Amino acid sequence: MKLTKEQSTEIKNQQSQNNQTKRVTAPELEKILYEAIPALDHGFIRVIDYMGDDTSIVQSARVSYGKGTKQVSTDKGLIKYLMRHWHSTPFEMCEIKYHIKLPIFIARQWIRHRTANVNEYSARYSILDKEFYLPSPENLAVQSISNRQGRGDVLEGSQAREVLELLKNDAERTYENYETMLNERYDGSTINDSKKGLARELARMNLTLNTYTQWYWKTDLLNLMNFLRLRADHHAQYEIRVYADIMLETLRKWVPITYDAFMDYRVGGTEVSAKGKLVLQKLIKGENVSMEDSGLSKREWNELMEAFDLQNKLV
Amino acid sequence: MKLTKEQSTEIKNQQSQNNQTKRVTAPELEKILYEAIPALDHGFIRVIDYMGDDTSIVQSARVSYGKGTKQVSTDKGLIKYLMRHWHSTPFEMCEIKYHIKLPIFIARQWIRHRTANVNEYSARYSILDKEFYLPSPENLAVQSISNRQGRGDVLEGSQAREVLELLKNDAERTYENYETMLNERYDGSTINDSKKGLARELARMNLTLNTYTQWYWKTDLLNLMNFLRLRADHHAQYEIRVYADIMLETLRKWVPITYDAFMDYRVGGTEVSAKGKLVLQKLIKGENVSMEDSGLSKREWNELMEAFDLQNKLV
Amino acid sequence: MKLTKEQSTEIKNQQSQNNQTKRVTAPELEKILYEAIPALDHGFIRVIDYMGDDTSIVQSARVSYGKGTKQVSTDKGLIKYLMRHWHSTPFEMCEIKYHIKLPIFIARQWIRHRTANVNEYSARYSILDKEFYLPSPENLAVQSISNRQGRGDVLEGSQAREVLELLKNDAERTYENYETMLNERYDGSTINDSKKGLARELARMNLTLNTYTQWYWKTDLLNLMNFLRLRADHHAQYEIRVYADIMLETLRKWVPITYDAFMDYRVGGTEVSAKGKLVLQKLIKGENVSMEDSGLSKREWNELMEAFDLQNKLV
Amino acid sequence: MKLTKEQSTEIKNQQSQNNQTKRVTAPELEKILYEAIPALDHGFIRVIDYMGDDTSIVQSARVSYGKGTKQVSTDKGLIKYLMRHWHSTPFEMCEIKYHIKLPIFIARQWIRHRTANVNEYSARYSILDKEFYLPSPENLAVQSISNRQGRGDVLEGSQAREVLELLKNDAERTYENYETMLNERYDGSTINDSKKGLARELARMNLTLNTYTQWYWKTDLLNLMNFLRLRADHHAQYEIRVYADIMLETLRKWVPITYDAFMDYRVGGTEVSAKGKLVLQKLIKGENVSMEDSGLSKREWNELMEAFDLQNKLV
Repeated sequence: MKLTKEQSTEIKNQQSQNNQTKRVTAPELEKILYEAIPALDHGFIRVIDYMGDDTSIVQSARVSYGKGTKQVSTDKGLIKYLMRHWHSTPFEMCEIKYHIKLPIFIARQWIRHRTANVNEYSARYSILDKEFYLPSPENLAVQSISNRQGRGDVLEGSQAREVLELLKNDAERTYENYETMLNERYDGSTINDSKKGLARELARMNLTLNTYTQWYWKTDLLNLMNFLRLRADHHAQYEIRVYADIMLETLRKWVPITYDAFMDYRVGGTEVSAKGKLVLQKLIKGENVSMEDSGLSKREWNELMEAFDLQNKLV
Repeated sequence: MKLTKEQSTEIKNQQSQNNQTKRVTAPELEKILYEAIPALDHGFIRVIDYMGDDTSIVQSARVSYGKGTKQVSTDKGLIKYLMRHWHSTPFEMCEIKYHIKLPIFIARQWIRHRTANVNEYSARYSILDKEFYLPSPENLAVQSISNRQGRGDVLEGSQAREVLELLKNDAERTYENYETMLNERYDGSTINDSKKGLARELARMNLTLNTYTQWYWKTDLLNLMNFLRLRADHHAQYEIRVYADIMLETLRKWVPITYDAFMDYRVGGTEVSAKGKLVLQKLIKGENVSMEDSGLSKREWNELMEAFDLQNKLV
Repeated sequence: MKLTKEQSTEIKNQQSQNNQTKRVTAPELEKILYEAIPALDHGFIRVIDYMGDDTSIVQSARVSYGKGTKQVSTDKGLIKYLMRHWHSTPFEMCEIKYHIKLPIFIARQWIRHRTANVNEYSARYSILDKEFYLPSPENLAVQSISNRQGRGDVLEGSQAREVLELLKNDAERTYENYETMLNERYDGSTINDSKKGLARELARMNLTLNTYTQWYWKTDLLNLMNFLRLRADHHAQYEIRVYADIMLETLRKWVPITYDAFMDYRVGGTEVSAKGKLVLQKLIKGENVSMEDSGLSKREWNELMEAFDLQNKLV
Repeated sequence: MKLTKEQSTEIKNQQSQNNQTKRVTAPELEKILYEAIPALDHGFIRVIDYMGDDTSIVQSARVSYGKGTKQVSTDKGLIKYLMRHWHSTPFEMCEIKYHIKLPIFIARQWIRHRTANVNEYSARYSILDKEFYLPSPENLAVQSISNRQGRGDVLEGSQAREVLELLKNDAERTYENYETMLNERYDGSTINDSKKGLARELARMNLTLNTYTQWYWKTDLLNLMNFLRLRADHHAQYEIRVYADIMLETLRKWVPITYDAFMDYRVGGTEVSAKGKLVLQKLIKGENVSMEDSGLSKREWNELMEAFDLQNKLV
């Protein structure tokens, strides 16, 4: 990730602010405010603003006149209770805003979370930066055979080199032709004074999906956790997980009590179906269970065994 | 509006906070933070938290690395442009949270704005305060004849006294019976040690719709303006307009540039249909127009004349 | 539940329709379309319209050109997979619309599900029906001691009679005074020709929260299941559960495959936290576990034991 | 637009359905159900399902037991009234579902309307079709000078040919390299048996933004009109307007009364700010007004003059 000198200055100016407020603050999050945290080869995540902290959840759950806090231990118990029983509204009372730079094909996955507020850099209006995502060699995976929407082993040898070469060349050439059509370089200089430029809203269609875009993305704490639960999961595509992992860390700095409950109940937890429950109950009683008797499909059975790490025990 | 001593203390404690932050602040809004602004006879509005200011709108419209501000005049022009052309997403980048006490029949109107986050005081869990809304005499209006969902003249004389008496007595008696069923007073004291109390979730059904409830209500700036546009309008019920007017004032303190644009384009503005446009164009050209030729219904015609204050001119 | 003759005729007229369509239909649901299914003492649920069936879920999950169905068995497997892995969007592709009559205090809980579309009968505009909910004796429960927002045993003897008497008298008197203030009876007849009526938007505040209201309520299949998961649960208030149980039955008639998966994974299923998982794993291995070692709070421990029916085994 | 034989058969099968239903139907819309209406060079729009018609709006606005219709003329008046006064909820009671094929850069604009339900063809899971959008010569516009996000004149001569050549070659080459990386052709055949294929979720990043994707897109009538109001407007990008225009036509077939009101109040209508209103009032009175006195900016002034076609009159 590389910032222009002007961008670095703008960020430093923001960080040098020292304002007084009667609002609650999250001191750990303040420390990294505005900072550009690198993600993938050219992307980043910046926390731009936030509202509320752990005590705000407690405050609104109690519809209190004052702060949420009675005692940290009581607050903790309440937040865990709310998380366990899927009480959603108190977590909606906190809000966070990010500035994110990310490849377009990842932005297309991300935007499917419809509950966030988004302002994206407009390629109808401006020229996109000359930056595209190229996977590092250890992330160049072959198509998984068992999972039709997943990855298998890493691609090796000459084929890996070939793939990287293709990605790089195609991105560079299509970008160059984008400039040619615009009759303008990414730095704003005109290419040929005697020519006109194609409308930006049209020229952009020539770019490849690994081109970087950027946006402001704002969401409440509940929907942030819904996003992270899906996107920090090992089923998620690696490239979006990189962003989710960074955001998990900002969650920890912002609302540490909620973070702990989230890791215990959502990220580390699992769901068991009615039929799966019967299987576990039998196992606890020391009874024998087979996939056939359980009423579970092979896929369900394997997922249950995996979730409780029972593969070896039950072969 | 009366606060208990404990509530006043809690509010004072919040107001005495003096935290450091790198976030942008809205100094005029900070001055009234947490304050209980009276509404109707027992209600209030308190601003509890906020995120962003006018510059945040500009910042995200530009997807900028720094603050929104280049020059106040440029920011103003951009915000007016966004408002005029219904660009919605930059206004979603600011957020505000209120603590509100209001009669249940008004809460029922209010909650129809579904885009806000809400935590309401739970009458399944707690006893509601012994407070009910009684209109002041000048707001006791008769049913409008021309508008089936509006008010006409003020009710006068003995009938007004009778109405107030009925409202007061019924609210007091049903509340008293609510306490009897709960076997508990509003201050938490038990009424009869040898009796059990009815479940709160059931007893509450005996309360009248003018009983006060309270909630935390959080929304983004765009949806706040949508709410205010409808609820500060003269078609809105007086009792909700009282709240909307107070919130308009908090809007002015929070984002003054946006407030001005909102008053000009939304509150003070009007919409003209395709057919209405033809009428105005003819009038400007000095031509004669009659309702019959216009293709407008009587109701549409009257609304157009009223919007442009043309009633006298065209009779 | 009692319908006027005119209402019954209107419903019969709707049911006598026999239209041709190229859309998919749900034959079992067609059979009960428009029918008023009684709920509580004066409420009802009517299915008014629907869109899609089980095959529509499959169709859009596959982004297919034709119908979803390849084979019923494949469709079933896919729907179960989508449910298990919380794929939400294909379930959003079906829609259902209900007409519901329900007490206001239940309507206030219900409306907190913000993702539905709602048109409620307007008491600003019209007079509410003279109908209020009175619990049957077996549902008159005392406040629970263990659960601050639940019910305990049934109230018995003279206290039960007293409560019912209070509820009945208060509802009747406040309704009568509502009519007096309106100067109009519920059937539209004027009370006193020499008097004016108070505005309807004001008079309604005198009604108690067990007065019935009604609305059209429309939602997609995903959000219907979210609603039912919470409201058909034994933690939900009895009076809303009555409605949820009826709706579960309409779900079964509409999308039987989805219904089965929903009952298995959501209604009959359970969630286990990271710490809870360790407890179950130890139990399966035949190891001893105590609440103290588990890191679970007493409440969490009890909830886990209850979910897997282990109370007796582990005392 | 070209469909495979299998696709055409699937569509014909759907169209040959003849089901009985008690639901309301929209006969004009039934006639084109499932049909693939061509859009741009390879895209299409298909209406897959719908719920409700004009009478459903009236029915729920009245919270009626029967159908909406009293008399068509009354229904018409009510729908116009609802539209004029921005009553939103009755329009939410109708729902429509489309199957749409469109270029990715247009899909990215489209998806910003967050209130719809969407299932997109997954390029993590499947191979995208070998189809890309190439503008026809009359749509190859240069960048507008006056409007930074619009188009100016048509590009002509050799430069036009060059642009089309670049777009075509780049799309074809990147697609070919996409196949090479996948080691699989778009028809599913393997390229080189001794090689492995790159994961689909990675290979897709090499495609250009004019590649076609497809999705199921479902929305209610209110949000459909919000979409059309913005996207059938002349400020919208030509490529999305093509789709919006087709959808306007499906709106007309589905809910003709609503369509008329929408065209009159939204599409053909205009908004006038408080300051703009004063200008028009003065003009109607025959007074002189200048931009300077009006308090309007130059841009606002021009927009007002344009909306009322007053440019010539007032120079």
